[in-house]
Amino acid sequence: MSKVHNFSAGPCILPPEVLSKASQSVIELGNHGLSLIEMSHRSAPFVEIMEKARNHVKELLNVPDGYTVLFLQGGASLGFYISAMNFMKEGGKAAYVDTGSWSNKAIKEAKLLGDVDVVASSEESNFNYIPKGYTVPSDVDYLHLTSNNTIFGTQIKEFPQSSVPVICDMSSDIFSKPVNVSDFALIYGGAQKNMGPAGTTFYIVKDELLGKTGRKIPSMLNLEVHKSKDSMFNTPPVFPVYVSMLMMEWMMEQGGVPEMERRNNAKAELLYGEIDRNPLFKGTTAVEDRSPMNATFVLTNESLKGEFDTMWNAAGISGIKGHRSVGGYRASMYNALPLESVQVLVDVMQELERKA
Amino acid sequence: MSKVHNFSAGPCILPPEVLSKASQSVIELGNHGLSLIEMSHRSAPFVEIMEKARNHVKELLNVPDGYTVLFLQGGASLGFYISAMNFMKEGGKAAYVDTGSWSNKAIKEAKLLGDVDVVASSEESNFNYIPKGYTVPSDVDYLHLTSNNTIFGTQIKEFPQSSVPVICDMSSDIFSKPVNVSDFALIYGGAQKNMGPAGTTFYIVKDELLGKTGRKIPSMLNLEVHKSKDSMFNTPPVFPVYVSMLMMEWMMEQGGVPEMERRNNAKAELLYGEIDRNPLFKGTTAVEDRSPMNATFVLTNESLKGEFDTMWNAAGISGIKGHRSVGGYRASMYNALPLESVQVLVDVMQELERKA
Repeated sequence: MSKVHNFSAGPCILPPEVLSKASQSVIELGNHGLSLIEMSHRSAPFVEIMEKARNHVKELLNVPDGYTVLFLQGGASLGFYISAMNFMKEGGKAAYVDTGSWSNKAIKEAKLLGDVDVVASSEESNFNYIPKGYTVPSDVDYLHLTSNNTIFGTQIKEFPQSSVPVICDMSSDIFSKPVNVSDFALIYGGAQKNMGPAGTTFYIVKDELLGKTGRKIPSMLNLEVHKSKDSMFNTPPVFPVYVSMLMMEWMMEQGGVPEMERRNNAKAELLYGEIDRNPLFKGTTAVEDRSPMNATFVLTNESLKGEFDTMWNAAGISGIKGHRSVGGYRASMYNALPLESVQVLVDVMQELERKA
Repeated sequence: MSKVHNFSAGPCILPPEVLSKASQSVIELGNHGLSLIEMSHRSAPFVEIMEKARNHVKELLNVPDGYTVLFLQGGASLGFYISAMNFMKEGGKAAYVDTGSWSNKAIKEAKLLGDVDVVASSEESNFNYIPKGYTVPSDVDYLHLTSNNTIFGTQIKEFPQSSVPVICDMSSDIFSKPVNVSDFALIYGGAQKNMGPAGTTFYIVKDELLGKTGRKIPSMLNLEVHKSKDSMFNTPPVFPVYVSMLMMEWMMEQGGVPEMERRNNAKAELLYGEIDRNPLFKGTTAVEDRSPMNATFVLTNESLKGEFDTMWNAAGISGIKGHRSVGGYRASMYNALPLESVQVLVDVMQELERKA
């Protein structure tokens, strides 16, 4: 297979070791005589996989006692509704910080269940920064944040102090740096960035806050129900959970989340350094809010687009076309992306400068 | 790998050809230089896979114009709520036939949204038959059925005539025999029996019946939203959809649904024939309602249990322990199970008779 430098925004690059083990499991899991995907989810081997996956999250993030880890379905998109359903009281109110498309979608779903107070937004400047210094009313049921904005390339570097429970969609930067889980009532997100493939969604929820809304919650949207069944209320997404488990084992072997952070910072410094140095490029976001996961940038001279696109394509780079709502380029540098791939992109940027 | 005869009730046996292609895709999909699971779901190769998967359902089941096929997440368990959400009017009422655990769960979720009229039930005899000859009120929004009862081993052979829209959970017998889709408002089910691996859920919905409830439906539970986005409202479960597509291609290569039905009938005749002939065994359901997918049976002499269990284990048979609510044995004979595996089980049953 020709070497591809996969900067895809998600689903995204996974380590070759993980892909190799995942591929083998589809033929036969261990020595069980069966493929992973034709085995009962109640069988001992899969029950063990589910337990390991849940425990790996706890280990990697130092999840304190009193929290439950779940692997469900539906992506963060269903998580928007599930989080509101489980934390917004009947006739209640919640505060949301609007930092882009995904926050917006979360707000839309929450409005079906109660009052939403958008306490801060960067919409007026196309979400190119993270609002700070806003006030959260003390009478809301929770504050909802999006830690990393995949489309716009911004990241919350410091979470606000809050007297109300904080819920955070961490789909696109979970496991990229340490997080103090005890600051949160709920952390959730789709697996398909740093955690694994598409098809499962993680929830890290503070037990004592569940069951307080007064709502009748449908079983599949009820975190208490899933907690009581150890993520096996119904047939789980077997393969996505298994590959997530492998991906977490890979992270542990590599040195855990601190090592992921070190590598991610090195990659981000290399790319943002070039964006700032090279007169042909400029970043699209406030410098202090730049995401190490998704770097968004544009050409300062649009007439070079054709040449640049030809060059990075020829270098085996894939997935850096910017989202239509920002334009330009977006280089996603999730945990599994090697520094080498970022160097290839930087080399192409420098080559363009020499040619131009 | 040692030969296992996989009678698992779901997730269940898949054809070796499908497993082989699925395994390869995790290393590299086609010649795209990327694994299937690290590729954007908006990339041309995956968009084509999703389209093919949806079209294969239409081809295999002769789905008429005016119906949409969707691949979503959450299993039939979320489908219980989604189906009620999209078809039960505000302040509405629905009729349910209660044929076992899954019907029961569907009823429970529907009750959160309106009045449920259980028009027939076989609960009084532990669901060992399919109720017939019941009356469906003409003022309900829909009638809900479960075509095949995986746990109890019964199947609806003839769907009732109905003046109201019919919704059917076909999780465990879709593609096992032809179905007249135009008789239904909605057919849905988890993929993890005849369609593929766990992690995706199919919906076949009659377009003109959507959007008539007067409800505000959360985006991820709204079939109209998913229809408008061709099953790509959010990141789909890439791998489960791909393997489902492969499984449907396998069915088409084998001769389609009529050939699946022929094979399933041959397997069912062989096993039920032995259950009826062999004095050591008896079936647990009404003969006319027996499911060709899941054959439930018990020993007539419980003292032979240890010996029988040792024998079928030694023969490489896996997954025939009965569900705790029925006891005894359950042999699931989904599309991918070869007749040869059923013959091995029958041979063991006959050997037990000779020994006893």
